[in-house]
Amino acid sequence: MKLGRILVESPDGPMARLVQVLPEEGRVIDLRRASIDHLMARNATREAALRLSEALFPGSMSEAIALGDRFLAALRNADAARPDEASIEMDKVTWLPATDPSVVRDGLTFIEHIKGFHEKMGKDPEPALLKVPGYFKGTPWTLFGHDAEIPWPDFIDYMDYELEIGFVIGKRGRNVRPEEARSYLFGLTIFNDFSARDRQGVEMPIGMGPQKCKDFAYGVGPWITTMDEISDLGGLEMSVRINGETWASGTSANTLWSADELIAYVSLGEWIQPGDLIGSGTMGRGSALELGRKLSPGDVVELEIAGVGTLRNRMGQPEKTPWWPSERKPFM
Amino acid sequence: MKLGRILVESPDGPMARLVQVLPEEGRVIDLRRASIDHLMARNATREAALRLSEALFPGSMSEAIALGDRFLAALRNADAARPDEASIEMDKVTWLPATDPSVVRDGLTFIEHIKGFHEKMGKDPEPALLKVPGYFKGTPWTLFGHDAEIPWPDFIDYMDYELEIGFVIGKRGRNVRPEEARSYLFGLTIFNDFSARDRQGVEMPIGMGPQKCKDFAYGVGPWITTMDEISDLGGLEMSVRINGETWASGTSANTLWSADELIAYVSLGEWIQPGDLIGSGTMGRGSALELGRKLSPGDVVELEIAGVGTLRNRMGQPEKTPWWPSERKPFM
Repeated sequence: MKLGRILVESPDGPMARLVQVLPEEGRVIDLRRASIDHLMARNATREAALRLSEALFPGSMSEAIALGDRFLAALRNADAARPDEASIEMDKVTWLPATDPSVVRDGLTFIEHIKGFHEKMGKDPEPALLKVPGYFKGTPWTLFGHDAEIPWPDFIDYMDYELEIGFVIGKRGRNVRPEEARSYLFGLTIFNDFSARDRQGVEMPIGMGPQKCKDFAYGVGPWITTMDEISDLGGLEMSVRINGETWASGTSANTLWSADELIAYVSLGEWIQPGDLIGSGTMGRGSALELGRKLSPGDVVELEIAGVGTLRNRMGQPEKTPWWPSERKPFM
Repeated sequence: MKLGRILVESPDGPMARLVQVLPEEGRVIDLRRASIDHLMARNATREAALRLSEALFPGSMSEAIALGDRFLAALRNADAARPDEASIEMDKVTWLPATDPSVVRDGLTFIEHIKGFHEKMGKDPEPALLKVPGYFKGTPWTLFGHDAEIPWPDFIDYMDYELEIGFVIGKRGRNVRPEEARSYLFGLTIFNDFSARDRQGVEMPIGMGPQKCKDFAYGVGPWITTMDEISDLGGLEMSVRINGETWASGTSANTLWSADELIAYVSLGEWIQPGDLIGSGTMGRGSALELGRKLSPGDVVELEIAGVGTLRNRMGQPEKTPWWPSERKPFM
């Protein structure tokens, strides 16, 4: 099943709704609306059907997934119903980020990317990269859905994209083992880890992880494909198109760490939560840096993963920053 | 005013409640209960008073602060009421983390700490530290309140605490200037950035920021002191006691970056949210590493900031980790 989040108009203003996506039919099904119909056909009053459907299908994907098996059962019921009243044409949809994770985490697993990145930077990978499946954390408030324009703060000069698989977590866990990690995986989405290479060069030496070089934007979408539709996590075809021109293509094979190891490592001593997003790290040649290229304002970035979909975003124009810190004098 | 979060029993099981803390009277006021009384005294029915009070005083500090001026007005009303039925003796209280931030961010601003840390590590600070008020991000699911036992995953050998001021954000903002940053500050709490020094040594060279060295535990509490009670952000007396013995004391003076600069920098190109927590970075000599010491299981860590309170936590016993990644062979 393919699940997404869209924005619809309501008497209270715009509101988020969960939808089942039927790409081959060019439409989406508003799940709350379908659930109301399903419940009323089974003797619920309209008021009660509305109340329960609101709880089963909130606007938050994370809150919905957090309902566990009950959410999956409600999905099956809504899927069986698919009333015409709940149907919306895809080309009329305003997409929201496919999930609203409590934390964005992003790994580094594709060997070709690690090689390509370090070759471009002219340095060897840190030996520490071989010890654990490291990852960084991003803030959850700068996620952008399919077709959203990506902000370009003017402190960024060298703008880049990164093509990644987004692993969406299906249930709460801590100290998960790799062999059980797959049962914690709800589905896949496409994750564009937009990156400011010039800011990255300043921030990385501080040793505290990315700040302004990453947290201005993460692309997430267009929707989530649940794991029952994915036959081989290591065999996904992936590609990047910029303004319609293919810049890179490859597959999800050849990783330093498996998805299961990455998820398990993330959960050690801490919690993974329903709806959380863990990026696979960038596919080999899946960033402009590796190709010696960069993005310009107005560029259209399309990331495709076969079996999932295509996440498309246009880069905005540079936006004025009101202030920037002045450099300090050495104190040691 | 001092505001905290506690756990109480309810017919549905344990539930979080917001409280006004009156340390000098040895009691806390359950704010939702006080609000119900206040509204009923003004002709609300009990049912309606309950419904509105639930919305005004949810269990989440972040959700409450997010109500903006209406939350402050409700606080004043509840403070004026203080009904006996809403009063709970402090020594019977189970504390929760004083806030439930969407993201934990933690800066590095105290010059003496930066010096002390680098002297112990035997290296010079990165010049990049002088360019921007860098910070790392932590996950929001491993926060611990006053008197909570701190987990000690067995992948940690060298356990440390860090004494920090926790800046609690009062309203949503993006691209905030330093001169307006203070209006985004709701209050102060005490932030214990527990740190695994041995894991830190492995993770920092990866360049993606802290992972297992930090995200196992953050201490936050005992409560929030609102800014009207803080006369001088640079003149706070701060101290550390381990098992009752004072290990360090100092003040909040002498920073490389001001609180206003740190908050403003964090907001550049991204969002700060009500209830978010930004750590000041560690006070000079505010970690055991700087003193050539370390924590042991069972140790009691007390961090005090005058005008705020004392955050006390006992370290747990080492907890078995079910799995650890096996090192990879070099690939370049």
